[in-house]
Parts: sequence; C-alpha cells; structure tokens
Amino acid sequence: MSNPNLERRLSRFLPVLDWGRGYGRADLMGDGIAAIVVTIMLIPQSLAYALLAGVPAEVGLYASIAPLIAYAVFGSSRTLSVGPVAIVSLMTAAALAELNLQSATAIVAAAGVLALLSGLILLAMGALRLGFVANFLSHPVISGFITASGLLIATSQLKHLLGVPVSGHTLPDTIGQLARSLGQINLPTLIIGVFATVFLVWVRSGLARVLKTLRTPVGLIGPLVKAGPVFAVVATTWAAWQFDLGNHGVSLVGEVPSGLPSPEMPAFDPDVWLALMGSAALISLIGFVESVSVAQTLAAKRRQRIEPNQELVGLGAANVASAVAGGIPVTGGFSRSVVNFEAGARTPAAGVFTAIGIALAALFLTPYLFFLPKATLAATIVVAVLTLVDLKILQRSWRYSRADFSAVVLTMLLTLLVGVEAGVASGVVLSLLLHIYKTSRPHIAEVGLVPGSEHFRNILRHDVETDPQVLTLRIDESLYFANARMMEDHIYARVSADRELRHLILMFSAVNELDISALESLETINDRLKAMGIALHLSEVKGPVMDRLQRSSFLEHMTGKVFLSQYAAFQALRRIQPEPAAA
Amino acid sequence: MSNPNLERRLSRFLPVLDWGRGYGRADLMGDGIAAIVVTIMLIPQSLAYALLAGVPAEVGLYASIAPLIAYAVFGSSRTLSVGPVAIVSLMTAAALAELNLQSATAIVAAAGVLALLSGLILLAMGALRLGFVANFLSHPVISGFITASGLLIATSQLKHLLGVPVSGHTLPDTIGQLARSLGQINLPTLIIGVFATVFLVWVRSGLARVLKTLRTPVGLIGPLVKAGPVFAVVATTWAAWQFDLGNHGVSLVGEVPSGLPSPEMPAFDPDVWLALMGSAALISLIGFVESVSVAQTLAAKRRQRIEPNQELVGLGAANVASAVAGGIPVTGGFSRSVVNFEAGARTPAAGVFTAIGIALAALFLTPYLFFLPKATLAATIVVAVLTLVDLKILQRSWRYSRADFSAVVLTMLLTLLVGVEAGVASGVVLSLLLHIYKTSRPHIAEVGLVPGSEHFRNILRHDVETDPQVLTLRIDESLYFANARMMEDHIYARVSADRELRHLILMFSAVNELDISALESLETINDRLKAMGIALHLSEVKGPVMDRLQRSSFLEHMTGKVFLSQYAAFQALRRIQPEPAAA
Repeated sequence: MSNPNLERRLSRFLPVLDWGRGYGRADLMGDGIAAIVVTIMLIPQSLAYALLAGVPAEVGLYASIAPLIAYAVFGSSRTLSVGPVAIVSLMTAAALAELNLQSATAIVAAAGVLALLSGLILLAMGALRLGFVANFLSHPVISGFITASGLLIATSQLKHLLGVPVSGHTLPDTIGQLARSLGQINLPTLIIGVFATVFLVWVRSGLARVLKTLRTPVGLIGPLVKAGPVFAVVATTWAAWQFDLGNHGVSLVGEVPSGLPSPEMPAFDPDVWLALMGSAALISLIGFVESVSVAQTLAAKRRQRIEPNQELVGLGAANVASAVAGGIPVTGGFSRSVVNFEAGARTPAAGVFTAIGIALAALFLTPYLFFLPKATLAATIVVAVLTLVDLKILQRSWRYSRADFSAVVLTMLLTLLVGVEAGVASGVVLSLLLHIYKTSRPHIAEVGLVPGSEHFRNILRHDVETDPQVLTLRIDESLYFANARMMEDHIYARVSADRELRHLILMFSAVNELDISALESLETINDRLKAMGIALHLSEVKGPVMDRLQRSSFLEHMTGKVFLSQYAAFQALRRIQPEPAAA
Repeated sequence: MSNPNLERRLSRFLPVLDWGRGYGRADLMGDGIAAIVVTIMLIPQSLAYALLAGVPAEVGLYASIAPLIAYAVFGSSRTLSVGPVAIVSLMTAAALAELNLQSATAIVAAAGVLALLSGLILLAMGALRLGFVANFLSHPVISGFITASGLLIATSQLKHLLGVPVSGHTLPDTIGQLARSLGQINLPTLIIGVFATVFLVWVRSGLARVLKTLRTPVGLIGPLVKAGPVFAVVATTWAAWQFDLGNHGVSLVGEVPSGLPSPEMPAFDPDVWLALMGSAALISLIGFVESVSVAQTLAAKRRQRIEPNQELVGLGAANVASAVAGGIPVTGGFSRSVVNFEAGARTPAAGVFTAIGIALAALFLTPYLFFLPKATLAATIVVAVLTLVDLKILQRSWRYSRADFSAVVLTMLLTLLVGVEAGVASGVVLSLLLHIYKTSRPHIAEVGLVPGSEHFRNILRHDVETDPQVLTLRIDESLYFANARMMEDHIYARVSADRELRHLILMFSAVNELDISALESLETINDRLKAMGIALHLSEVKGPVMDRLQRSSFLEHMTGKVFLSQYAAFQALRRIQPEPAAA
C-alpha cells in the first residue's frame, strides 16, 4: 500500500487500519484492564437485556461477542462499547410481540432477522451518507421517548420482581394485569427482588462514599460501582442454590446451553422480513442516535472526532455480526461505554478483548447461571433504566416553548399508551408540522435606526429614528410558498393606510431562501405598490438569495434598488436628512 | 340595528348588508349590462362543463343559478362569478368515476353529494379561519397541476371532436383508447368539431382585430369576443337540425328537461359520503385557491380587499346551494369573472341578475338545445382550457431552482399519469419535504467588516476586514432540531484548526427561531469552546429569540456576551483596534 491517498481512504472506511498500525504496549495495558472490567459488568447486563427483549438469556451473551469485534474493525469511536441495550431490547420485544410467535426457536430466529435487517439498513444509510436523517429526531422527541421507555421497561420488570405472570407492551395494559395478579405475589421472589434493588441503588450512591473513605484509588471507584450487579448476581444465585428457591416458586434462569452456536445466516422468510422491516428501520435510527451521542460525548473528552456516516457502517456491521452469531439487535450503550472509557480503554481493541472475555464466560460460566433468579436480572434492569427517566424535561420544555413541550408530551404519551413505534413516529411528524406551522406565519418587524449607529431594530422594542416617507419592514423568515402570501397581506394592510409613504424597504437580512412562489409574491407586491406610487427596495440581500433573484427577471422590473446595507438604503431614501454634524 | 359594532360584525359575515345599503341607479345599470353579457357566455359554458363532469348538460345550468345568489349574499368579492369551472369539473368527473356508478340518476345524486361535502368543508374551514391552509399549495404545485389538468381536459374532449367512444382518466389511458378507435372517426362530427374549434380560436385572436377596425367601442370588444361560443352554438345547432346530423352519427345534447328541479337535500348514504370525502376536500381546496386568486386580482384593480376566510364562507354557501338545487361543485371562474368585471359589474347583484338570466334560459331555451352537437361544446372546452396550459413554467422554474422545478414536474407527471388527486397530494408533500431538507443544511457564512461602514458581509464575496483572534459566523437559518447538529459540526470543524482564536461570535441576524434542540446544541458548543479557551458571543439576536433564551439558563452559563449589533461586538473584541482617525 504505497499510495497514500488510497491508504487514507481505506483507513477512513476501515478505522482499524489507522489505530491498529501504531498499537503499543501502553495501549495493550489500558485496553486489557478496561476489557476485564467491562466483561464483568456485561455478563449480567447481557443476560438481563436478552430477557427484556423476550429471548433466552444466553442470546444476550452471543450478542456481546461478534458485534464487538465487527465494531472494532469498522466503527469510528475509540471507546464505544456495543451490545444489547435497554431501549433497543424494549423495541425488539415490541416488534417480536407483534408477530405472535409461539415457539422459543421461532422468536430467537425472528430476533436474528431483526438484527440483520437493522444491520443492512444501517449499512445502506452509511453507504448513502444518510447520517443526517438522525437529526430529524428532535431533542424533545428523544427525551420524551427515552423517559417513556424507561418507565415502560421498569414496569415491565415488576412481574419478575413480584413473581407474577404478566405480559403487556403498553403501560395501562401492564399495570392492569399487575393489579389483577397482586394476590399471586411470590414471597421469596419479592424478597430477592427487593434485596437486589435496594443493594443496587445503594451501590450507586452509598458504595462510592464508602470506597472513598477507604481511600480506594479514584480510578477504581467507578468500575467497582458499575460491577455492583455482579455481587448481586453471585449473592442471589448462591441463595437460590442454598435454599432451593426454584422449588419455592422463584423463577430461575435455568439450563443455559454451554458453548457458542455455529455462525449461521438467518433464514429468508419474506413474510417475517416484511413484517419486521418497519421496526428494524426505527430500531436502527433510535440505536444510531443513542450510540452517536454517547460516542460524541466521549470523543470530545479526548479531542477525537466521530464520523457519523462511518458510525452507521460500524453499527451496521455489528448488527449483521449479531444476526449471524445468533444474537439480537445491538447498539452503543451509555453506561458500558463510560465504564470502558473510565477504566482506561484507548482503542477498539478493548472491545475485542471484551468479546474474548464474554466468549469464555459463554463457554465456562453457563452451568453456574442455572440458579440465577430472574428477579435479580430484573432488579439490574430497573435500577439501570430509572436513570433514563428525566421528567424535568417536561418542566424545562414547558418554560422554553409550548411547541417543544407538546412534542415531548405527545411522544411520551403515545409511547406509554400505544407503543414505542407510534410514539417516535408521531413525535417526529408533530415536530416537523410544528416547525412548518411556525415558519408559515413569519414575524415581520418595522425597524428604525438606532441613534449613533448604523444598526436597525424593531420600533416597538427600541428607541429608533424613522422617516415618514420611508417604511422598512424586516422579514424574519425565509420566504417560501407557505408564508409568501401572508407577507403580501401584511404589507398591503400596513401600506394602504399610509398616505405619506413613498418608499418601502424590505430588509432581507433574515431571508435565507426565496422560492419561486415567494418570487411571484414579490412581483405582485412590486406591481401593486407601483400603482400606489410607492417604490419597492431591498436591503441586505444575502449572496445565495441574490444569486437566485438574478436568475429571474424580477430585478429588471423592480421599481426601486437593492442596497448592500439597510443603513445605505435609509440614508439614500430618507426625506429628513440628518444634520451634517451627526453624519 | 342601532349598535354600530354589531352592525360592522354582521356586515363582515354578510357582505350584502354592506354593498346592498347604498345600491343606486348607476350600480343597477352596470350590474344589469354585465349580467346580460355573462348570461350569454355562461349558457354554453355551463352545459359544456356539466358534460365534462360526467353529468347531463342541464345540471350545468342548475349549478349556475342558486350558487350565484348564495355567493352574492356571503362572498366578499364584488365581481367574482361562480359556477361550474373546468378544473373542478375534471376533478368531479375523476371522483365520480371512482364510484363506478351505472345509472345517470345515481351519478347526478353523487355529484350533488360532492357539492354538499365541498360546501360543508369550505364553511367549516371558514368558521375555523383555516384560509391559510391554501398557502400550502405552492406556486409550482398549482402551475403544474393546472397545466396538467388543461392537457387532461383537452385530450378527454377529443372523443367528442372525433365522435369515437373513449373513457379514461389518465393521459396514457385516454391516448391509448383514442389510438385504437381512430378507424371509427365520424366525419360529420369531425367537421363540426374542427369548424367550431377553428372558429373559436379565430374569435379569440382575429375577431378583436376586425372589431377594432370596425371602430367598435373598446368596452364591447371583450364581451363580444367572450360571447364567441354562442355564435358557434347557434350555427352548429342550426346545421345539425338542417342536415339531420343526429341520424348521421353526430352526438347531440338531445332532450333537455325544461324548468328547474325542486330544491332537495342530497340523500345521506354513509358509504357514498365517506368515499367522496377525500375528493371533496381536495376539490374545496383547489377551488378555493383558484377562486381567491381571481378575486384578489380583480379586487386589486379597484383597490378593494378580499377577506380569504369570508371567501371560504361565500364559496361554501355557493356549493351547498348547488347541492340543494341539483347541481355540481362550483367555484369562482377566471374567464367569467373577468367578463363580469370588464362588462361593468359593480356589485354582487350582477350575480343575482345573471342567475335570473340562466333560470330563464333553463325555463325557455332548453327545447332549442336538442340539436346542439356535443362536438361544439367540446370545442368550447378545448379552446378555453388550452389557455390554462403553461409549459413555460417548466423552463422558468428550471432556471430559478431545481427544487421548484422538481415540484412542478412531479405534480404534472403524477396528475397526467396517475390522476388529479395523486398529483396535487404528492406535489404538496414534496414541496414540504424539499423545504425541510433545505433548512436542514444551513448556509453558514464567515463575515468581516465592510470598510468605511458598520456592515458585515461574507469574506468570500466581499473585501472585508477581519481579526485573527475573532471569528464571526453568520448562521443563515433558523436553528431547530433538523439543523442544530450540523451547525455544531460546522463550528467544531472550523474552530479546531485555528490556534490563534479567542472569540467566536455567532451573528444571529438570520436566526428567527431557536428550539430546545438548538438550545441544547448552543450549550454544548459553549462548553466545548470553553475547554478550548474560546469565548462564545452572540450578536444581533432578534427580540423573539432573545425572549426565548431568557427563559432558559443558557445566558447565565455563556462564556461571552450578547451584543446588540455585530459592529459593537467586533469593536469590543478585535485585537487590532482601528486607528483613531478611522474610528
């Protein structure tokens, strides 16, 4: 590879070529330690999120091996850790539920198809450089969705904590079923669930304080706290074995097959593929948004850059790998990536080492998982997802703007009451409609000269100079079909009452775009004002808009002139010229 | 009515109270003459557009009586003339064809339902003040739709001009059927069709010249030219009677019932009503847009104002009246309104007089219509609609912008190939998506001071002063979720390479809106720049945006300041201060 240009392009598509070249001993140390910490943390998390997705626990382990290796090769983040995450698992469960499959084998197979489709969609988006599509998920939609998902996930786990049979994919459904089955609560399960939950909450708050007083090195506190679930897993597994809780109504993980399934492409069944396509698209998009925002936050801390389109390729490859390895849809997770970063990971090789760790666990640890109570896994999920719930967004968005607030509320309510897909989709559509509605009624300010400057501001907000025969209107919006007519009406209403007027200046400093409908309106305004003996001028027309106007014949018919600055326009047209001293 | 406030509000809802009060002899003269001219013009037009809509000819007359009276009471235009028009009749035909009705009675009944639904939709939009919804039909969509409709209508009439049996609602369909039936052309029909077409084309161009050389008063030339179809009708009817053309394969209008049907509400059939609802909504919207633009053009000539929401009420009432009177959907027509205006109509009373004229025609003229060849009516339609076809819009929009061009082309193609409703709907959706796409990739200009002024322009387009430690970026777009992230990326890319930089000024003169997603981005930018030792400042923040920022905590954390003007910001932050003489 002596061609440096080709090399640069290749290493852009295969970031491994970039970081792999200079890999040294320090990298190995950092990556190795991070991998050990993350592996310990990932084992219970992978099992838990598999159960959340509605597939057997071991599938979570399979989804935490091959995808990490694929991401290490193609991903652009140095420290992102991919695998099953709460929200994507929730969406997976919702998508699989719609298929109404009965056998566990069919469900696992469908989950693989979902991962494959997500992977292919992400790869296609990457190839077409469609990363910007994710920008259409507005902050209110994402916040509302994540908060609602956190609540949905937490309530969905209550059945495991209480030991009652419940299945529902919307909040009213789940709560209704829970209420009806309160009489069947299993006491040992409840004790384990409450113990695990309280312990995990304490680990997050109290343990850090205890470790600090014990003078534990600061760098270790974070990983130790994140490894809390492992202690809960070990303790409750031991208790379940010791007291034979399986025969006292406590749900256990049970027989977990040892070893790894042989790689296999999901079978092609057009009905299933078609049915899962919409869900796969939404899972890809949400997973991508979640992952990219984690990756960017971490990259910024070390002044590294994330290439969103390359991230699509990385995540796409990870999902295809998950599908082939018998896993479920995956994405970059927040807490695991932070742990990876804080434990000192320096390159994606940490992900490869983590994959090796999980593979060893799948090979040798599974017999010990037999007695692991599902209530413990449910507790780790509940404690993890409650950090996602951010109800303050309601208050913040309400204070900031009613439009943003309504997008938060709609997304949240529909996610809780109808489902995750309806929630996101209607949030996006509402956000776009609200934006269009806002731009369709432009703010138009009458402006005057701020004394002692060349600056023009709204006459209603500032003390400014004006002239009776010159009217300046600042159009505060790009002009396009949805608002051009409204601008016309505004101008006629303002101008028709004013007998002294000789010049109308439209100040175009905020007009970023002018489509052909708006051009038509400008031509009509020009003609009508001409009939009234008023000249039409433009000021502060931006380059791109001016380019456009020059491609039409409008400037030839215009009764007035185009001025570079509003000040130049006002000075040229005002009747009352300022005194020479002030000039 | 002694309460002037109530009176004003009432006359706003019932414009007749306004113009009816001061009605005088001069008004009566003007309105009377206009009514005679318009009546003569409307008789063949009403018959023709009824046939175009797929209903018997006399239904066109019924639709030209009651609606005119209803509009005179409720409409806000002084000179608009309502009745069956080409495009609405085409849309009516398309909507009725979808129902697959067999009997003529059922088709007429369904047309009445369509008129009623359109009327109710228009009234509801008027009551809810939804007139602005029409603004979402962009100029390219309307132009493309009208041109395509003109072509569709013209080809749909070829069957009458050639005397062959053809029925199709898309261009390829109609043309295919025409091609296959070329062998069955009826010669007498062809002769009448060609004669009528050539005559009508000559009336539009040659007749005006002849009349001018004959020193006909200028005011009469327009109406005489517009009455051209009447001559064609009389001549071909006479020929059909004289030569017994009905028995030589020429399609005649035939038996037209004399008198008027008694007023009757269309029967309620949920299936039919539901099936027609979508078409009715689109017919209302298109009819409203067409009518309002005619009304505004005419009103502007006499310095009168059109109130769009009152127009909705006027057109709604006209359609309900048409439904009750056994008619079809109606709207304000361009050519008839212009004739009414030019013939001297001064108030909506002209419409009432026209209605009386048409009613007399329905009572006494119908026996004479028996021998009227359908080919003559087809010729009047073809000549009228070809003026709608404006293929230059393709060239103009191509030159102006690719986005506008693609909206024209999509609307035109889908209207021709799929149907009128698909054409309009996809045109609107494409226009909105294109607008959103454009705003999602904002233009960001680096600006500097234009020497000798306080004005800042793009450094790439103008010769301006800059300072190595101050960077000013002018954001040329409102900031919202779809583009906030792109602005972030742009800023990081520009700033990270520049070691000397100490201040970044974001010039907000073109930022008209800032949603909570963009606020989030600004906060992130502020934090990251802080870590790089660069202060973030804002300049020329508009009132509404500043109000918004003050409702968040952003301004408290911001590392820099908000400056009223960009000039003030630059003067305060630049390292190289200008020499005192230049200050």
